[in-house]
Amino acid sequence: MKKRIAIFGSTGSIGTQALEVIQQHSDLFEPLVLTAGSNADLLIEQALRFVPAYVVIADKEKYAVVRDALAKLPVKVLAGQEALNDMATIAEADVVLAALVGFSGLLPTLNAVKCGRNVALANKETLVVAGALITSLAKTTGSEIYPVDSEHSAIFQCLAGEDPQSIEKLILTASGGPFRGMDRKQLEQVTSAQALKHPNWCMGNKVTIDSASLMNKGLEMIEASWLFGIQPERIDVVIHPQSIIHSMVQFTDGSIKAQMGLPDMRLPIQYALGYPNRLPSDFPRFSFSDCSQLTFEKPDPRLFRNLLLAYEALGKGGNMPCIMNAANEVVVEAFLNNRTGFMEMTGVIEKTMEKVRFIQYPAIEEYQETDREARRVALELLKSKI
Amino acid sequence: MKKRIAIFGSTGSIGTQALEVIQQHSDLFEPLVLTAGSNADLLIEQALRFVPAYVVIADKEKYAVVRDALAKLPVKVLAGQEALNDMATIAEADVVLAALVGFSGLLPTLNAVKCGRNVALANKETLVVAGALITSLAKTTGSEIYPVDSEHSAIFQCLAGEDPQSIEKLILTASGGPFRGMDRKQLEQVTSAQALKHPNWCMGNKVTIDSASLMNKGLEMIEASWLFGIQPERIDVVIHPQSIIHSMVQFTDGSIKAQMGLPDMRLPIQYALGYPNRLPSDFPRFSFSDCSQLTFEKPDPRLFRNLLLAYEALGKGGNMPCIMNAANEVVVEAFLNNRTGFMEMTGVIEKTMEKVRFIQYPAIEEYQETDREARRVALELLKSKI
Repeated sequence: MKKRIAIFGSTGSIGTQALEVIQQHSDLFEPLVLTAGSNADLLIEQALRFVPAYVVIADKEKYAVVRDALAKLPVKVLAGQEALNDMATIAEADVVLAALVGFSGLLPTLNAVKCGRNVALANKETLVVAGALITSLAKTTGSEIYPVDSEHSAIFQCLAGEDPQSIEKLILTASGGPFRGMDRKQLEQVTSAQALKHPNWCMGNKVTIDSASLMNKGLEMIEASWLFGIQPERIDVVIHPQSIIHSMVQFTDGSIKAQMGLPDMRLPIQYALGYPNRLPSDFPRFSFSDCSQLTFEKPDPRLFRNLLLAYEALGKGGNMPCIMNAANEVVVEAFLNNRTGFMEMTGVIEKTMEKVRFIQYPAIEEYQETDREARRVALELLKSKI
Repeated sequence: MKKRIAIFGSTGSIGTQALEVIQQHSDLFEPLVLTAGSNADLLIEQALRFVPAYVVIADKEKYAVVRDALAKLPVKVLAGQEALNDMATIAEADVVLAALVGFSGLLPTLNAVKCGRNVALANKETLVVAGALITSLAKTTGSEIYPVDSEHSAIFQCLAGEDPQSIEKLILTASGGPFRGMDRKQLEQVTSAQALKHPNWCMGNKVTIDSASLMNKGLEMIEASWLFGIQPERIDVVIHPQSIIHSMVQFTDGSIKAQMGLPDMRLPIQYALGYPNRLPSDFPRFSFSDCSQLTFEKPDPRLFRNLLLAYEALGKGGNMPCIMNAANEVVVEAFLNNRTGFMEMTGVIEKTMEKVRFIQYPAIEEYQETDREARRVALELLKSKI
């Protein structure tokens, strides 16, 4: 019996690599659902190749194109954000791969967890924004969450066979991004084109900018806190430019376990889809002959303040991480379109965190409101600067 | 109910550290048996402090001293090698810590495994010499073997929660010892005093010399092969001078897990005694601020041929590792007493492996014969050179 995978965000970086994994293990996996935001061409191509039972295109204007292209196949085509959110509850899915980018990934994931679906989670914002809600829901419904991020997958792998009570510390590694070692002056000049050249990982644009600004690590710190139930003061971030050690766990006896390998997202994707089984792969292997030196340094919080903001947001709790996340999405978008500078981003996020109304125990609708409000405030702040 | 630990070799490096661990967790552990070769003074001191049920001194001449010193305590004192071998079968022991050095550790360990005792194994020679015998016996009797060597403990920890079938490769790390980077000329001049200055680990003399000559890694490779059921061609050795990563496992999906920490034998000892529970400790923690660089290099097989001899011995099987081990014990002893040079040792081992009769399927008595014969041949070779 094959595992049926519902891929939310099949045309993105994680989605396409997930389909590679599924193809390599076509004896074990089959895609049940493919969804895309607006990339109809790739979605059609994928659907023609894998013939999933369902295809959803969020952009309603692309519905007809997709429907017509797949007319001869036994594929049900749906369109719109609501259809996408609903599809996440699909009972036949053995695993829902939540690979949507940004806040839009929250609702489908929440729906999947509500219905007790097992979720391979690549969407950071889900736990960043609504970690308390999602993790308590998952406990109630029995939904299991398998992390897909390389860092969280590393920790998840290190925790196999270990008692969670014996965790002393999580150590998240960060490549430091393309701007590591630059001083303030240099950072003020960097462009989005430079930021998009990540030294180790090939990822989507949003994540690549977040990686350059260390916000990515801040989001991951929050995510790790919820995923593994560890307080932020017990989560360290260490810069490891080679991206070979993907993260570590330190236990109460002082022993540290690390998960290592070449930077290749297919590995954590495959681990999450195959869990609890490790499946063979022909991914290229890491060799110490190719990389004879692993180095480590502390992040510089004066230049990369996003990391501090994330600790602060998680410390305050409530809707504060949601505010931070929304503001970050806005400034990253602006930076990608050359509408703000690299060093300006953090200030806008910080001010947005001050301005938007704090709610200690938000309901899901309040998260949505917060998200909208924070975006509005961040945009305003951006405009007032120009 | 406390775990009762029978410590074979309580006055040695591992034994004394095990007693430290036991003392720190006196709510969980109690020493049941303490044994020593000839160090009566320390054995008495330990017995006075821990009041074990049994004390064995192998050197019969020291019997009266030990007996008299402990006369007022409820401690049964025994003497002689035979008493020591017999004591390993003691039914009340929850764990037998086999921390004797060299071939003499074989019989007690074998006896413990025969009787289904769980063994925390610090004695390399047991598996090097009689790995086939011990592992098949353990399967029959249900005896569990917990490795105490830092490398094997690292692998054991990395394998927690993993399917042994998914092991692709074991990667043993080696510090490279004090002579790493020396050329042949320099190596010809080194003294035992220099060899005893290990850069990272504080260990007994025999192990320290083996570490300098890489024979230690050869013995560990053989031990790892038996412990984890992995063929030698799937065991790599990599030089890692900082001794922070204690060893690694590469899985069939390409993922590598590493166990790290400061070089501190108390950690693997505690892990073995506490298994399957990780116990808290106040051992000093590793920090990336103290060691910002981990380096790796290939061992040089032309200068450190012992490693090749070990692969060869395990490849041939039978009594060949036993021959190699015995010859090594002889040359190390000679080197410690300045009766042979550092670079001469390997040649003597190699010649001994050629000269002693090969037996493909030796019985336990034949291992003992082989050990005696190999020692005789090695000594002769040493003499003929002087």
